[in-house]
Amino acid sequence: MSTSRLRKEVDEALLAFVDRQRAPLLTISDDLAPLLSALEALLSGGKRLRPAFCYWGWRAAGGDEDDQAVVRAAASLELLQASALIHDDVMDSSDTRRGQPSVHRRFEALHGAQAWPGDAEGYGAGAAILLGDLCLAWSGEMFETCGLDGDRRRRGREVYDLMRTEVMCGQYLDMLESARGEASVATALRVVEYKSAKYTIERPLHMGAALAGARPDVIAALAGYGLPLGIAFQLRDDVLGVFGDPGETGKPAGDDLREGKRTVLIALTVERASAAQAAALRRRLGDAGLDRPGVDELRTIIEETGGLAACEAMIERYLGEAERAVRSAPIAAEARHALAGLAVAATARST
Amino acid sequence: MSTSRLRKEVDEALLAFVDRQRAPLLTISDDLAPLLSALEALLSGGKRLRPAFCYWGWRAAGGDEDDQAVVRAAASLELLQASALIHDDVMDSSDTRRGQPSVHRRFEALHGAQAWPGDAEGYGAGAAILLGDLCLAWSGEMFETCGLDGDRRRRGREVYDLMRTEVMCGQYLDMLESARGEASVATALRVVEYKSAKYTIERPLHMGAALAGARPDVIAALAGYGLPLGIAFQLRDDVLGVFGDPGETGKPAGDDLREGKRTVLIALTVERASAAQAAALRRRLGDAGLDRPGVDELRTIIEETGGLAACEAMIERYLGEAERAVRSAPIAAEARHALAGLAVAATARST
Repeated sequence: MSTSRLRKEVDEALLAFVDRQRAPLLTISDDLAPLLSALEALLSGGKRLRPAFCYWGWRAAGGDEDDQAVVRAAASLELLQASALIHDDVMDSSDTRRGQPSVHRRFEALHGAQAWPGDAEGYGAGAAILLGDLCLAWSGEMFETCGLDGDRRRRGREVYDLMRTEVMCGQYLDMLESARGEASVATALRVVEYKSAKYTIERPLHMGAALAGARPDVIAALAGYGLPLGIAFQLRDDVLGVFGDPGETGKPAGDDLREGKRTVLIALTVERASAAQAAALRRRLGDAGLDRPGVDELRTIIEETGGLAACEAMIERYLGEAERAVRSAPIAAEARHALAGLAVAATARST
Repeated sequence: MSTSRLRKEVDEALLAFVDRQRAPLLTISDDLAPLLSALEALLSGGKRLRPAFCYWGWRAAGGDEDDQAVVRAAASLELLQASALIHDDVMDSSDTRRGQPSVHRRFEALHGAQAWPGDAEGYGAGAAILLGDLCLAWSGEMFETCGLDGDRRRRGREVYDLMRTEVMCGQYLDMLESARGEASVATALRVVEYKSAKYTIERPLHMGAALAGARPDVIAALAGYGLPLGIAFQLRDDVLGVFGDPGETGKPAGDDLREGKRTVLIALTVERASAAQAAALRRRLGDAGLDRPGVDELRTIIEETGGLAACEAMIERYLGEAERAVRSAPIAAEARHALAGLAVAATARST
């Protein structure tokens, strides 16, 4: 099916699932309605990349084009992603997500609007932790009730379980490298591999392929495409996090710099910095109050050191590797074509 | 099987599951070892109430005595509980759990010991959010891979899914009532129902019974026992949270008072307070710096108003209701006997 039709069907499956939770929640209490509104607002954005890779992994392994059960299994990955985003924003104290207030800020505002006594920020964080937990539980529920038979689900679940463990461990390592305050290109790439490349692309592909009962050579070919593409995807995201248009990224310009994220782009810059540039990086990276001139100073350093050009060259190299892998993959032409298109979309300079 | 043998088998199943996660984690990075140590420390405590109720729900519905698969399904509830405790302690900024430092404090201390730059408290909270997420995901994985057949798991999963949603919603409502700063006995009881009574007792029983394919009359009888017992259990926990021995509760004396929890015990006290007592309650409840004389002042008010006696009377009433329900339940004598014993254990004045 076409990209736009798949997107529409994934959206419908997600909305139908969340809507089925409405009755049990409101039976408990009307006070739970803000949890549903916050989730629906978050789900109104997003590119649905993980469901798309899951679906095309399924098709690559010979799965039926119009199977609604696999659309539901694929859509369950968006609830996993919603959970990760909500918790990530709490951990990073991010104000915005997908161009809207982050979930913890929404509930902080609710606390303020009600003029309740006590700690509005703590209330926001608590509500976001719980809504993230709900999304994680609901992702599992949506996967298990997708309608595929037990054997298919068992094979897909092995990948789904591994994927959840990998992304949570990758996020821990990301936080650890930021705390240590210095990451080499190699350690930053290890974080990218688990937090992002496997999670966003390789494992969704494998999960779809496993649901369809893929042969080992198909699994291997999808890994040969998915892992380098996943790295290129995250490197593009790092570049957009510094140089991107807030209207397209849904995040204020320079947020990654304020958070002091030790991305591959930053590691490539640090490697190439003069003593004066290195001192400026140490001083300004992770400064939560970084203003526009401060962001501009860091951008200039990232460009003038050649860090940006080195990152763009890595993106090209990994993307090229993915494109070669998909051309020779033992999969149907339609899947090959779709995956080549997704590779371009996932690494585009604007969204 | 006996209480002590069940406890031992649940512990072995849990340790075996966590141990199977060691290889994949350490393949990603040795830096992940502290996540496993923190989880093992947390799992070394706890009364394993939820697995016990799940197992006896299974037996009540005619399940085999020695089925190792149901022991694994029951043990998966301890990972769900570990997730809830870890996240709850972050939300409440609790320093201790089960007599040890809470998970976020452990990781805060790790940050301090490494003398990393930046925010140790944020690091601790982030690590605890991620470890709680891992436990939630692993609970689902352990349930699905317990070894029971697909039909049994499908029936049990319906309860498991509902239970996860209920406990997360109950925790949100608990936070909401604390933020509002005033809860009647009725609203406090609604929180108890979802956050605790269903989650700790009724749903674990139902899950075990559903796994065994219980008849509707058995499900109804277990609800008639589990819900009132669950309320009595939480009311006892509220009393222990104020008057209990820290050596037995694993929490410092008066922690619930410092957090300003709007428990049924507090609501019963507020209902009965004079103007002067009400003013003291408003002033001191939720004071994070409450010292021993402050705790003693509140304890005296809770006793002198008759709030404590009213709470003890409610515990007796709900426990009596549960005991009557189990005596007339259409279940095997051995299950009836075990459930009567668990009712006493779950509401005992010391642990």
